[in-house]
Order: sequence, then structure tokens, then C-alpha cells
Amino acid sequence: MQDLRYQTNRRSPAELIRHLQNFELKLRFSAGIWFFSGSNSRFHTRYGRELTIEERLEKYAGLQQYGLEGIEAHYPNEINEHNLPLYQGFCRDTGMQVVTVVPNLFYEEQFRHGSLSSPLPAARQAAIQRVKETLEINKELGTEFMVVWPGIDGYENPFGIDFIEMRRRFAAGLAEAMDAVPGVRVAIEPKPYEPRGRIIYGTTAEGVLLAGKVERLLQNQENKQLLEQGYTLVGLNPEIGHVLMGYEDLPYALSLPLEYGRLVHTHWNSQPPGNYDQDLNVGVVAPEQAEAALYVLKMHGYQGWFGLDINPERMPVERALLNCIDALRAMNDRINSLDHELVVTCLQDPERYAGYLEAILIRARARKADILSPLSFSTP
Amino acid sequence: MQDLRYQTNRRSPAELIRHLQNFELKLRFSAGIWFFSGSNSRFHTRYGRELTIEERLEKYAGLQQYGLEGIEAHYPNEINEHNLPLYQGFCRDTGMQVVTVVPNLFYEEQFRHGSLSSPLPAARQAAIQRVKETLEINKELGTEFMVVWPGIDGYENPFGIDFIEMRRRFAAGLAEAMDAVPGVRVAIEPKPYEPRGRIIYGTTAEGVLLAGKVERLLQNQENKQLLEQGYTLVGLNPEIGHVLMGYEDLPYALSLPLEYGRLVHTHWNSQPPGNYDQDLNVGVVAPEQAEAALYVLKMHGYQGWFGLDINPERMPVERALLNCIDALRAMNDRINSLDHELVVTCLQDPERYAGYLEAILIRARARKADILSPLSFSTP
Amino acid sequence: MQDLRYQTNRRSPAELIRHLQNFELKLRFSAGIWFFSGSNSRFHTRYGRELTIEERLEKYAGLQQYGLEGIEAHYPNEINEHNLPLYQGFCRDTGMQVVTVVPNLFYEEQFRHGSLSSPLPAARQAAIQRVKETLEINKELGTEFMVVWPGIDGYENPFGIDFIEMRRRFAAGLAEAMDAVPGVRVAIEPKPYEPRGRIIYGTTAEGVLLAGKVERLLQNQENKQLLEQGYTLVGLNPEIGHVLMGYEDLPYALSLPLEYGRLVHTHWNSQPPGNYDQDLNVGVVAPEQAEAALYVLKMHGYQGWFGLDINPERMPVERALLNCIDALRAMNDRINSLDHELVVTCLQDPERYAGYLEAILIRARARKADILSPLSFSTP
Amino acid sequence: MQDLRYQTNRRSPAELIRHLQNFELKLRFSAGIWFFSGSNSRFHTRYGRELTIEERLEKYAGLQQYGLEGIEAHYPNEINEHNLPLYQGFCRDTGMQVVTVVPNLFYEEQFRHGSLSSPLPAARQAAIQRVKETLEINKELGTEFMVVWPGIDGYENPFGIDFIEMRRRFAAGLAEAMDAVPGVRVAIEPKPYEPRGRIIYGTTAEGVLLAGKVERLLQNQENKQLLEQGYTLVGLNPEIGHVLMGYEDLPYALSLPLEYGRLVHTHWNSQPPGNYDQDLNVGVVAPEQAEAALYVLKMHGYQGWFGLDINPERMPVERALLNCIDALRAMNDRINSLDHELVVTCLQDPERYAGYLEAILIRARARKADILSPLSFSTP
Repeated sequence: MQDLRYQTNRRSPAELIRHLQNFELKLRFSAGIWFFSGSNSRFHTRYGRELTIEERLEKYAGLQQYGLEGIEAHYPNEINEHNLPLYQGFCRDTGMQVVTVVPNLFYEEQFRHGSLSSPLPAARQAAIQRVKETLEINKELGTEFMVVWPGIDGYENPFGIDFIEMRRRFAAGLAEAMDAVPGVRVAIEPKPYEPRGRIIYGTTAEGVLLAGKVERLLQNQENKQLLEQGYTLVGLNPEIGHVLMGYEDLPYALSLPLEYGRLVHTHWNSQPPGNYDQDLNVGVVAPEQAEAALYVLKMHGYQGWFGLDINPERMPVERALLNCIDALRAMNDRINSLDHELVVTCLQDPERYAGYLEAILIRARARKADILSPLSFSTP
Repeated sequence: MQDLRYQTNRRSPAELIRHLQNFELKLRFSAGIWFFSGSNSRFHTRYGRELTIEERLEKYAGLQQYGLEGIEAHYPNEINEHNLPLYQGFCRDTGMQVVTVVPNLFYEEQFRHGSLSSPLPAARQAAIQRVKETLEINKELGTEFMVVWPGIDGYENPFGIDFIEMRRRFAAGLAEAMDAVPGVRVAIEPKPYEPRGRIIYGTTAEGVLLAGKVERLLQNQENKQLLEQGYTLVGLNPEIGHVLMGYEDLPYALSLPLEYGRLVHTHWNSQPPGNYDQDLNVGVVAPEQAEAALYVLKMHGYQGWFGLDINPERMPVERALLNCIDALRAMNDRINSLDHELVVTCLQDPERYAGYLEAILIRARARKADILSPLSFSTP
Repeated sequence: MQDLRYQTNRRSPAELIRHLQNFELKLRFSAGIWFFSGSNSRFHTRYGRELTIEERLEKYAGLQQYGLEGIEAHYPNEINEHNLPLYQGFCRDTGMQVVTVVPNLFYEEQFRHGSLSSPLPAARQAAIQRVKETLEINKELGTEFMVVWPGIDGYENPFGIDFIEMRRRFAAGLAEAMDAVPGVRVAIEPKPYEPRGRIIYGTTAEGVLLAGKVERLLQNQENKQLLEQGYTLVGLNPEIGHVLMGYEDLPYALSLPLEYGRLVHTHWNSQPPGNYDQDLNVGVVAPEQAEAALYVLKMHGYQGWFGLDINPERMPVERALLNCIDALRAMNDRINSLDHELVVTCLQDPERYAGYLEAILIRARARKADILSPLSFSTP
Repeated sequence: MQDLRYQTNRRSPAELIRHLQNFELKLRFSAGIWFFSGSNSRFHTRYGRELTIEERLEKYAGLQQYGLEGIEAHYPNEINEHNLPLYQGFCRDTGMQVVTVVPNLFYEEQFRHGSLSSPLPAARQAAIQRVKETLEINKELGTEFMVVWPGIDGYENPFGIDFIEMRRRFAAGLAEAMDAVPGVRVAIEPKPYEPRGRIIYGTTAEGVLLAGKVERLLQNQENKQLLEQGYTLVGLNPEIGHVLMGYEDLPYALSLPLEYGRLVHTHWNSQPPGNYDQDLNVGVVAPEQAEAALYVLKMHGYQGWFGLDINPERMPVERALLNCIDALRAMNDRINSLDHELVVTCLQDPERYAGYLEAILIRARARKADILSPLSFSTP
């Protein structure tokens, strides 16, 4: 299990400049197997036929040369006891790896009124059991963490709900499963709404609250020992689109789990604020948010994966993934090319260097800086 | 065909007061047959099995005693040449009526890149053909109008699109079909987004622009004669949730087609601003918007239907429809109970009666006015 | 100092029903002296002349008979060492009280680049000093808490900002001041944006994170002792409009600080989601959110104030305050009138009682239930 | 008066390609004199002292070498009968020009309940008079058009308002003034909200409706003759931030007045969707929207000004304007550099070239295309 305490290092401006000059993000890409085949929609049919897992893995293999290294899948609908050897064989053959197996806690009718938070005991028990089994399979595969998305846990009409108890059920159910299968790190993926009008623990800050709460509930000795040794057992997997659906500022949002050593994973796409969950390719909307987000990750030395979580409804999945990978590479190249001393200096003295960092970014994004007005650092 | 010119009557304050004192909205309810069975979702399975049309019609019959009088259905997936006798027999037996048949221009894979606005000739022709056939069936059934929802006509990435040409294709395709099957009124239902990142003609004001544009394109003599006689051939069907997804103010939005004599139909539900398309029951969210909207309809003497367009995922459709009907009845009762002279007077002189109308509404919504501070009209 | 641990009591459904049947919210109203005179705007002049503090206090006195009991004011622009006797005399004479004195950390040019979080040492020191002085005056007046609004602490362009350090400066500055003047409880008032593009600690969940963080930083023995005795030293003052500007669900948002025993105060008004900060009167927009919020407070036995924080630009402040007070009284009357056993039962079994609670609320809000469809509990 | 009928030219794909290859936008910049001095805010003092008109004009002169050519000002607070010679002398000396004089219809207390739409006769008459005087001064200066912003014309509580009559008052008042001082083109600047909860005619599509309505009301022979000759007398001035506050898609929004030959002017800045009116520098937020908007203007051969309308609260106005000018130059350079045949081809066949335009844009925005995956047009 990776030690995330590097995220809690605090640096003086001078240290920060040195760090920014020396550390570059390693763009290790993973992708969710769910979007290699078209998905249902309330308003249109699935586009194209549903692909088999074998067909999807073949697409992974074809993209490996472009940097795709990891697979993400839901249990049990995409990965399970029966097809596990298929994944294992594929990984052995290609050197790729299963990064995370995610418990499917949202799709089935039994979770209609919630999964881990359901007031209905049978549904909640089924959810806990589902999490346990998914923890087992993560353990068997030696993944780095298990993503948990509280997708169907929420409400439409808030009147009368005992929200504190609802959240308690969710947290306690997760802790119960984690204690039954100890030693696996969990990464919460908050989402503010859809498919529920409101989803509990829907923002990044709430995810941080949940993470601490679940850790405090853990009883199993193995888990407690890991916590004592400084390992994070519950952290976050911010999903860019979800963050923006919640009207959060993306770079700021990422800084929240980083502050607490809880940034376990990241899921990338793009999305206009609010709206429905579009899962557009990275950079299609508001690329400046993604670029600023990468810089925050660089500032704090993020060592995790870049999980791609898109929904390419009108283009081949290969083209969509290449676009995402290329967009992130181009952004990463740009932020690495900046004069980091200048960036830090501008932000240390916003009065003296007012508007100057913006001018630097305009030039870093321009094709030809010589068509722009002259800019000298001595005379901002 | 109903003459909508009553909507363009303008009234002085005194005339408005008299009108408000004498005119009450007639709550004639229709409902879309699509939501009598659970729908697919990207994130969860269909809840419950898919019901047959017969089973759904039976539910209509059970609700007739509560005021449900009309049926709305899509062609060809819900109503078509084969099951037409089923609907006709049902209507004959019960006295209910098919209010509108809506061309399904969004669900099938052929419309993936748009329907009437598609740059792909085959898809666009298929869409025009679909509209023609739906016009025919509307004509055969003698419905009052045909709703058209430009659902899949839009884009995610706006770069480079010739939007004017895209809109022209849509308008011209609709006009072509209307001229092929003349004499049927159309009601456009705008929606700002979902299932596309952006849908063209997405707001009420854009719908008004589209309506005028299509009418100007009509060539068929029968259509031209109807226009000359003062009949609206293209109007609007504002869908409350869509209006709010676009961050419009509901009562203001309804006043736009009314100004132009183009309010053909209304679709009711509730929805938080923005967000995904929830189709919640009427009044669950922001009931004050629905109440103010009813008052606008009353002010302008609306004589159309109250179409219910919901998506009751977690309750029986009968309960959901009763809740909507009851909510609208209670709101209508409240607005009718107001002292309309007072309302109009307050708005005529916002300086003298500042805050007073708000006080009146607080009392109209209170269970017991005697627990509130005394209020007298002479001393605002 | 009030012990807030009552908020962390957890109740079984049966206990909750008994509690709801027996506990009623006590509507103690306070109001901010800032809005008794018109305020500046970027887009229009101040309406009316600026009133003196004496003139404003006179208006408080006139509203006392309607339930206004408390005054809130900013230091030093509204309350300060010089006019303190004026407030003290007024309170002695009337029996009203100063509920909180708020440090003005946003209005002056020195805070242009932030107050407690400013990277500029002089500005940050001035902010810390301002907080210390305000704590002193709160102590002198024996207020129940000091509200802190991080209004000018934020950014417009996120690129390159060390958010973790920015938040640290804010929290550490607040802790430093609290340790210098120990024994005063603080209530954080988050706001997502305006007057900054983004304000740090902008949501309720972030406010909960800040509260814990500041408490952990406290060193003064008196403060540490209070914490050990179980007293909350840093809690929240959710401002309804701010919560909705951040697209939070109001009742859910209030449940977050309640979970942690940190709901110190509440600021009431109304607001559409997003938008600019309108500070409309209570219930003008989305009254169902306010009603559900009151029910959450009732569920957890809230004993604090109901602070009114409005901006009545186009009506006399007296009318505006009466409308708010009346609106809250009417809502409170309605929620108290409910059959709480039914409410809790419906939520315990959402499958069996699906849509039923909604039907109950429709009836509770209707003028005449007899015009609605019959409803019996045995046959939902 | 410029003939805008060039905007209504429609081009086949082949013609569009040729046009895009041959037409480049001419970046003529103007700026509003209002933001050369800090503005009031509800939440903070004006930053810096208020500058005299002379001091502001001096700043214009200093920026002329970077492309600033035009001045915009409000009547009577910024430009009026008394200081007119000052502007005239400055323009004579520098060759700069006053592009538009805008009637101040929002700031004063007399317009508290609206200006041209006010139900209060005295306020409405004062507004009409203000418009007349501003038309005169525009005529005297020979400006190209007069911008009109319906800023204070709106409402907070929609209940009971006769919106149709409210809009009629606005349109009729504007027409009355235009007929009194004929021959001046008007450019409406819609805004959805702030400083009112809702502003009438708040979106681009509504602005198009208003433009047609006012033109139909004009009676003066000179005006009628101009209309008959094909001149637009009422068009639009979309303000980028306002468009995005209304959750519109910027390039799509610009295409609406272009369709009707009504795009008179443009106001540039940047803004997150919704939120309060930030007037951030161009490109700070969502630069991809601005870039796509420029491409729409290029597609339709826009020949108007690029008015800068910002609110640089924390940087010198010169730096802010240079950043805006540089950002627009860099964007314009990028869109001109594209292979337009490729762009048009991709959009003509979204099935065959799915995702390909996105890949082209990623490369056009990248510093080094060689670090990205290879891309060949023959094999999308």
C-alpha cells in the first residue's frame, strides 16, 4: 500500500519553487471498462452492440502503446469470480494491470432506495455483502485501492429525512465490510446528483468528512495497525465531472484531500458546471480548470493514476481515449514549461505582480508570443 | 382547431381585475403513456417490468375519476398503425381522448447525430418521414396538436458548427413535413440539454423564434389559409422542468408564447434549476414557481390542457399522478381565493405597496393567519 | 456558553417520533443592523439616506412586539468602543440583546487580497488584530458567539495557488486571535462566491472541516479546557442564501454541523440556486427548502437563534422583517401540525409508503383538503 | 450606418471553406470608460480613488499603440453636454473615436422600480427622456450605435406580474425615444439577472425578439425608410459574461443575432456559468468558449468592434486591457491557423470523422504536437 503522507508535506515558497522545477507528474493512464461499450440512456438506445469483455480487452491492448496501462471494472457485472482468469491472463500477457474493482452498488433494482444507506435492512445487507465480495476480489488481484461511488444513495424530496442517520448507515456499512476484509484501501468518489436528485456525501469536502468517519469506525486489528502506521485507509477519487456538476472549483477541490493525505486516485473527463453527467473527453470544456488542476497535483507531488472516465457516445472509444491522453500530455507539457519561480513569486505578492501571472499563461497558451504586447518581469 | 388569439388580448388594470375575478382555469389533465412503465437509465436498470399498452390504458381508466382525461403517446413506439384500434376503442369506451401523438425523433441509433437538423441526409430524411407519418396519425385521431421535441438535435463541442444552417435544417424539415400533411398544429417543446450537451432551440424564447420561422416557411395552401385566418400553426409546449433546467423563470417563460398567441400546450412536473432532467412530481421543488405560473395562465385566460410529464421512479404511477393532480388543484384553489384587486393594485404601485403582495401570499399559504402580524390594506 | 452536545444525540425512530411530538422550535429572532439602511451596489446608488445607529435601533424597538429580540452588528463600522454605550443602553431599556458582533474583514481596501488568508503580512496582521478586538467586544457584551465570514478570502484565477497554505493562513490566524482572547465561541459563515470569484471554505462541509482544524490549533489553556469539557469553540452559522448559492440542499446542509454538534447559529433569507447574493425575504424563493430545513432543526432540537439576514432594497425594512417573521411562523406552525409518526413511518419504509409523505405535505399546504383526492393511511 | 445584411449571407460548405480561408476578423478594440476607475461594490469599498475623465482618457492614449481605438461611455454620468468638448478634443488629437454613448437607465434612485418598463409614469417618462438625450449625443458624435442595457428592469418575486405589459412598456418607450431622435441604431445588451433577481429580455434570443418588436413599433418616416432600405435599427450587443450568466452557449448565442442580421456590437470578458457578474478578463474562464465564438464571427464575416467590458478589481486597468487584447489576439491567431477545409469536412460528416475535430484542436492548442499520438486525416 502506497504511503500517502508525501501529500501532507508543506513547503515554503522557496521549497515549492525547487519542487516545481524538479518534480514532473508521471502520466499513468487507466480506463474504465464500462465505457468501451455504449451505455443505455433514458433518452436513446445503446449505440452499437454490447461488446464482450474479450473484445474490450483487445481495445485496451491496442491503446497500450499510447500509455494506457490500467483497467478499472465493476464487480460483478464486468469482473467477477468467473471471468477473473480472463483479466489475469490479459494482464500477464500485456503487463497491464487491474487498478481497481468497484462494487456495483447502484444498478440493480434491489438498491432502488439506496445501498449502504438504505433504511431497508435487506437492501443494506446486500450492499454490505457486495462490498465485502468486491474487497475480496481487489485483494486477490492486488489492486491499489477499491473505488466506492455512493450513486444511488440519496433522495429527491428532503422533507423529514434523518440525514445524520442516513449517512451513519452508509459509513457504518462500509466500515463493517472493510473490517470483514481488512487491508484494502478505499477511494470514495463523490457526486452531487444523478441518478438521485441529491446524493449523500456529494462534494469533495463531504468525501473528506466521510473518509475520516469511516476510519474512526474501523475495529479490525489489521486495519487499526495500518492507520497507526500512518496509512490512509479511506481516501478520495475525485471525478472531474462530478466535481464540476457540484459547482466546485477543480484545482481547489483536489487540494482538499491532498491537505489530509487522502488523494488516492483521480478520474478525468470534462463537464460544464451543473448540467447532467456528460463525461466529455478531457479538455473539451473549460481546459483551464484541468490545467490548473494538474498544476496543483504537481505542487503536491501526486504519484497516483490518471483514470479516464468518459462516455464517448458519438466517437470510437479509441479516438476518445487518444484525445484524452493527448489533451493531458499537452497540458502537462505546458505546465512543466512554465517559469515556476515566476509563478510562485506572482502569487506571493499579488499587489506588485497583479495580472502578471495571467499574462504569463496567455503567452504559454499562444502559438506565437511575438504577436502579443511585450512583457518584462522587472516592470509588471 | 382552437383559435388562440384570445391570448393576445391586452387588458387595462381594471379589465385585468375583472377578468381575474371571473375567469378560472379549467384543470383538464392529460398524461404521457411513456411513464406508466419504468424507463431505462444510464445508471440503473428499469424498475419493474415493462407494461403492455393495455395494462397502461387500464391505469388511465382507474384515474379518470380524479380528472385524468387525456393520453399522450409517441409514434411509433407507443402508438402506431397496428395498435391504433386499441386506443380508439379505449377512447370510445371511456370518453377519454388522445391529446397528441409525438414523433419519436430521438431514441433510435439513426438519429445519433441529430434528426431534422442532422447533416447526414439519410438521417434527416428519415426524420422528415417520421414527422409526416406522425402528422397523419394525429390527423386520423383528430388530436388538437402534435408536440415536437428537438431532443437529439444539438452538440457537445460547439467549435466550428454552422449553427444557423443547423437550425435552418431543423425548421425547413419540419415545414416540409407540415406541408405534406397540412392542417395540423405543432407545439414545440424546447429543452436546453440532455441527452445532448446542448440542444438547439433550447429555451422558450428560442421556441418562439422557431415557431415564427417555420410558419414563414410553409407553402401548402391549406396551411397558408389557416395562417391568414389567424390560426397559429406552430406554437409551444413549455415543459416546466425543461424551462427550469435552462434557468428560466417559469411564469415569465409562459408569458412569452402567450404574448404571441402561441401557447398551445403545457407539460407539468417540477425540477431544481439546472441539474439533470428529474421530472419530479408537480410542486415537489419550488412550488411558488408553479403557483405564479398558474396565475399567469389565469391572467391570460389559458384554455389548454395540463399535461403531466413525470418520471415516477420510486412510487406507483397512480400515486404520482394523484399527487400532481392534487398539488395543482390545491394551487389553483389558492390563487383563485386571492383578492385580485389587491394583487393588481400592489403591482401597479410598487412604491406605495412595497412588500405588501408578499404579505398577502404569506397569509394565503398559512394554515392560520391569526398567528401572524396584523395586516391592513389602508396602512401598508 | 451553551452546551451544543444535545445536537449529537441520536434517536431511534420511536424516540424520534416522541421527540417530534414534544419539541417545538422556539423562534427567537435577531436581525443584522447593516440592512436597516440601504446598501451600496455596483449597479445602483444606495436607496434612501444612510440612517444613524440611533435611528436603526428605534426600528428594532418598534419590531420587538413581533418577536425581534436580538441585534447583530459588525465591528468597527456598526458597533465599536465609541458607540458601545448606545447599544448597552438600548438593551438595558428594551430587554433586547446583542447576539453577536462580527469582525468586518472584507470592506476595507487593506483586505483587497484577502484578510486572514492574505499572503501579504501586513494585511493578515491587520485582520488578526481586527478579530482580536472583535472578540474583546463580544466578551464585553457577553454575546453568545462571534460570527466570522471569510468574504474577501478567495481568488478569481485558481492557477498556481497553494490552496492548502492559503487555508492554513486563515485557520491559524483565527486560532491565534482566539487564543489571545480566549473563551469566545466562533461561528463560521461559509459563502461560495461574491465578492470573490471563489471564497475559501465556501460550503457547509468545508466549514465543518475548518471548525475542527481551528479547534485543533488552539493552545490557550482556557480554550483547551473548554474543548475538554465538551464545548464547541468553533461552529457554523449557515446562511440560507449562501448555502443555496453553492447549490447545496438546505435541510441536508444544516444536518452537517448538527452531526458534529457545531450548529451555533442560523442566518435566514431566500435565494435561487446559484445567481448573485440576493438576500430575499424568507420564503420568497423555494419555501419548501425552508420548511424542510425547519423540520431538520426540530428533529435535532435546535435551540439557537433565527437570525434574519436580508437586503430589502425595494421595501421598508419593517415590512421586510415582518414578512420574514410571519413566513417563518407560518412554516413552523405547519410543520408542528404534521402527524410525526406518519412522517417517520413513511421514511422508514419508502417502498411501502412510496409517495405518501408527499401526499401528506400537499394536504398540509392546501387551503381545503376536501377538494383533493381521498387519502387513507392503510391503503397507500 | 453600416449595412448588416452581410450577416444574412448563407454559404454552402464549399463557399464556407473559401470564406474561412480568406476572411480574417479585424480586431478593433474599444473599452468602457466606467472601469478605468474602481467601482463600488456591496461588499467592499471602491479600490483606489475615483479618476477624473481626463485621467482616464490619458490611459486610453497610452494603450492606443496596443490596438485600443474606441471609447464607450454612459450619459450623463461619464459623458454629457458639459464635458463633450473634452472627448471631442481627445478624439481629434489621437484619432480615437467614441464608439457608443449608453443611456444610464439603472443607477439612480428614480429607476428603483424599473426604467422604461416602470409601472410608475414619472420614472418611465424620465427614462424615455434620458434615452432621447442620449440618442442626441450619439447623433452629435456620429457614433455607430447606442447600446441599451435593461439593467434595472425586472423583478424578484414573479407573482402576479403582467409580464407582457411590462415588456410592452419597455419596447414602446424605446420606440418612442427612437422616433423622437430618428436615424440612430440601437444595440440591446441582455442580462439575465443582477442587479435585479430577474431582468426582462435577459437572454440573447429574447433580445432578438425585442429588436423585432421595437422596429415594428417605429413610426418616424426616417426610421421607416431606413428599415425599408434594409438597415437594422435595433440589434444586439451580446455581453459574453451576461450570456454565460444565463447558461447560454456563447458561440451558439452569437449565431442568433447573426441569423437575423442583428449583431451590432460585442462586449468581451469572461465568466463562469451562473454566478455573479464578475467581468473577468477575456479567457480567464472557459477560453474554449471565446475561441469557438471567434470562429462563429469569422464564419459569418463579423465586421464590428470588440468592446472590452471588464471590472479589473485587483490589477491596473492597463494590465487588464493588455491581457484581454493579447488573449484575443492569440485566440484569433489560432483559429486563423486552422485547416478550415478539415474543420468543415469533419462537421459535415460527424460519423466518419467522429472525434477528429477535437484532435485537431488539441494539436492547435499544444506547444509541441510531436509529443502527441500521430494523426492522419485519411484514417480517422
